[in-house]
Amino acid sequence: MISGRSFSVGQVAKALDVALIGDPETRVSRIAAVESAGPESITFITGPGYLEALNRSQAAAVIVPDSLSGETSIARLISSNPYLCYAQLTRFWVDHTETKSAAHVHASAAIDPSAILESGVSVGASVTIEAGASVKANAKIGAGSFVGAGVCVGSNTVIHPNVTIMHGVTIGDGCEVHAGAVIGADGFGWAPSRDGWEKIHQLGGVRVGDRVSIGACTTVDRGALDDTVIGDGVILDNHIQVAHNVTIGENTAIAGCTGIAGSTHIGRGCRIGGAVSIVGHISICDNVLITANSFVNRSVKKPGSYSSGFPLEESATWRKNAVRLRKLDEFIRGLRKTKH
Amino acid sequence: MISGRSFSVGQVAKALDVALIGDPETRVSRIAAVESAGPESITFITGPGYLEALNRSQAAAVIVPDSLSGETSIARLISSNPYLCYAQLTRFWVDHTETKSAAHVHASAAIDPSAILESGVSVGASVTIEAGASVKANAKIGAGSFVGAGVCVGSNTVIHPNVTIMHGVTIGDGCEVHAGAVIGADGFGWAPSRDGWEKIHQLGGVRVGDRVSIGACTTVDRGALDDTVIGDGVILDNHIQVAHNVTIGENTAIAGCTGIAGSTHIGRGCRIGGAVSIVGHISICDNVLITANSFVNRSVKKPGSYSSGFPLEESATWRKNAVRLRKLDEFIRGLRKTKH
Amino acid sequence: MISGRSFSVGQVAKALDVALIGDPETRVSRIAAVESAGPESITFITGPGYLEALNRSQAAAVIVPDSLSGETSIARLISSNPYLCYAQLTRFWVDHTETKSAAHVHASAAIDPSAILESGVSVGASVTIEAGASVKANAKIGAGSFVGAGVCVGSNTVIHPNVTIMHGVTIGDGCEVHAGAVIGADGFGWAPSRDGWEKIHQLGGVRVGDRVSIGACTTVDRGALDDTVIGDGVILDNHIQVAHNVTIGENTAIAGCTGIAGSTHIGRGCRIGGAVSIVGHISICDNVLITANSFVNRSVKKPGSYSSGFPLEESATWRKNAVRLRKLDEFIRGLRKTKH
Repeated sequence: MISGRSFSVGQVAKALDVALIGDPETRVSRIAAVESAGPESITFITGPGYLEALNRSQAAAVIVPDSLSGETSIARLISSNPYLCYAQLTRFWVDHTETKSAAHVHASAAIDPSAILESGVSVGASVTIEAGASVKANAKIGAGSFVGAGVCVGSNTVIHPNVTIMHGVTIGDGCEVHAGAVIGADGFGWAPSRDGWEKIHQLGGVRVGDRVSIGACTTVDRGALDDTVIGDGVILDNHIQVAHNVTIGENTAIAGCTGIAGSTHIGRGCRIGGAVSIVGHISICDNVLITANSFVNRSVKKPGSYSSGFPLEESATWRKNAVRLRKLDEFIRGLRKTKH
Repeated sequence: MISGRSFSVGQVAKALDVALIGDPETRVSRIAAVESAGPESITFITGPGYLEALNRSQAAAVIVPDSLSGETSIARLISSNPYLCYAQLTRFWVDHTETKSAAHVHASAAIDPSAILESGVSVGASVTIEAGASVKANAKIGAGSFVGAGVCVGSNTVIHPNVTIMHGVTIGDGCEVHAGAVIGADGFGWAPSRDGWEKIHQLGGVRVGDRVSIGACTTVDRGALDDTVIGDGVILDNHIQVAHNVTIGENTAIAGCTGIAGSTHIGRGCRIGGAVSIVGHISICDNVLITANSFVNRSVKKPGSYSSGFPLEESATWRKNAVRLRKLDEFIRGLRKTKH
Repeated sequence: MISGRSFSVGQVAKALDVALIGDPETRVSRIAAVESAGPESITFITGPGYLEALNRSQAAAVIVPDSLSGETSIARLISSNPYLCYAQLTRFWVDHTETKSAAHVHASAAIDPSAILESGVSVGASVTIEAGASVKANAKIGAGSFVGAGVCVGSNTVIHPNVTIMHGVTIGDGCEVHAGAVIGADGFGWAPSRDGWEKIHQLGGVRVGDRVSIGACTTVDRGALDDTVIGDGVILDNHIQVAHNVTIGENTAIAGCTGIAGSTHIGRGCRIGGAVSIVGHISICDNVLITANSFVNRSVKKPGSYSSGFPLEESATWRKNAVRLRKLDEFIRGLRKTKH
């Protein structure tokens, strides 16, 4: 991990606005998981189950919940939510250890004269920014990225290298788009004809809210007529496919390799696991949890936890069960006939 | 959606070569789905189920099937296939509203002197075109894309930004390749040896037919010895993996996140849903429909519709069913024993 | 396939260090699968099942196992492992037919003055190499690729075009990273808070061993605190997601479209099929085989073959079975009640 600087726990506690028990001069030079915390490490525990590991460790400091503040003698930061406090600590760490480069527009970037770059904008090498695009204050466009005509990138948004943002897409403030992501490619709309597939040109756009994170190689297609919409605070992991006219509500989190087919609506505050596939033209209400690898083949109208997926088994056993499954209906019908 | 211009429905009907009932001077300035059609909108309906929404809407004009031409009083275009007519309308719209930029080769493109660019070719910023490549008339190569040695890109083909086309790949006329796609990376061929995996260098290529669409972040690997082949009119959505030596027949459509393992042959006119996984070395005949999320673990020799996939259930119920499924064979054997 | 040169089988046998039976002056100008071997082809067979195809073919030469050396009269190379010998032949072919271009750093590459490029390094057009990065002897960085600050790319490693390697990532010697891959994007770490998701800044890195192959559009995320680790000799196909803090042991092979969630450990010598999804925080021991499309929802502690996945069926049948499956637990409970 990034290192080379150390902090006093007093400074850290003050920055995170939490109480400290122990010597404020204790030095910490790295954040570590409790299992691998060595000298000068600051770590965190969320419950009593980690106390043993903490006591075995050489950690110099720890973030603990109030209830455990008496269970250790090392310097401790007291937080009602140690995991959130740890997240805030990582931000403190980045802010104080990463060297911020001054805003700079690389000479090799191809920027249309009609594009507007506000103050503090950084543009990497080999970037293309087309006509009418606007990049708001302090945003960064990573090397090799493409910003199409009329695109709007919000303030403080970070576009990592080799990202593609097609014409007309709007991205809000404080977003992060990781490398290889593609926002605004054409939705997959085709009409069958006698001569093959006739393309339905995709005339909608993509609207991405504020504080949205989009993972590496994730794709968000433009809408057919209306826009595809990603709400504020949505977090999308890598390799996600968001098809045309999908809408995703605020603060919903989606893990990697999940695909969402066209015109499906996903509510607010949902948590969708990895490798889930969601069919098109359905609705998932607010606050739904979908576990990994599920096949969402129908609307979900009630908050709660939903699953599907064939559990792992030794191949020989699986093969037998799969054969039985293929004849399950037949078998049950037979059984019922026998009984009458 | 793209806007800023309006058309008379008379002009539209003439361009699409369909009959018009109503005032030809009616102005339309946007295409809209029937549910969101406001003033100056032209919409379409494919059957009587949408009549109520149409009547509720403020649409100025509508594309209707012959059978429904008497069911509305607004300006209507009569088509035997309204959905296809809508697709043609989107093309009309793009042709008449998007400003076509003149063909232009950006100064920052690195083009080998031995590459041949025909008339009307556009090349974006930071493009690389290597030795012996040829780009046919009116093709476009988007910013940041890579066109390897000996590649042929057909006429009127559009390569979007940040696409990678490796050496020797052939792409036909009238194709579209979306951002982030990779055509012609090495197939995954390895021989086990005592010292680990020995690479089987992939000496085949990729041949993509005419009028093929390849989605964002889709990959089509080069063949081991022979070529990987994508037939004319094939449409591939985003995040599809086409492994080495796969062949896909004409006009087959494949939805997003589907993976096809090596040396599998897919027939013509198939429709394969999203998130399908297809094992290697099998054949799927013409006109097969595979529903979303299926696991195609064997050849399909008869046209028809095929499925697999565990249906979604509340997690508590799923867990119980999954436990039963893991012991299904054992259970049925036990039951049969009991009965004898 | 690449062609234009021919070799005598004597030269080939000598280069591969295997015995030859037949005329050493026999010319071969292409490698072909036994089914498509024409004149001047050299092919290979791994067992007696291919003899008939061999005899039907026009192959000029063949690699055969010792046991079959008497079963054909054409020139034959005798190998205890014909498939491995074929792999070595493809390497011989590439070495003798592809023109090696001299090492060259393209003028359009943006290379920070503090980056170190050793002898023989090639850098394509529009590449970015940031501060403190080092590229070891004879490595190649493909056009449009991004090499972040402090990255180390090992000797003889090939980075294909449009690859993104984020800051601090280490890639060993003799590796190959295919187009569109992203190494070192942020892991998906977030803490829930009252105001939405608080980002856990990812302070770990990625360490990739020697002789690793990473497929097109594959992503390997950086660790949260510790590193994500890919062992020596690991081969990853396309569209794979390796989440933060995953570790993959030496010589493990993973096929396309597989996703591995965070902090999961995979042993050495495993073979994982395509479209497998593996949940986070589990361990898979050495020498485990997971078949395609499996859902790995628990640790695997014993070497062997494991599977899951709903087998393909005609849609009508599948629908009935799926309905039964959704009520399987209920059904079995009912049955047991009846019996008592």
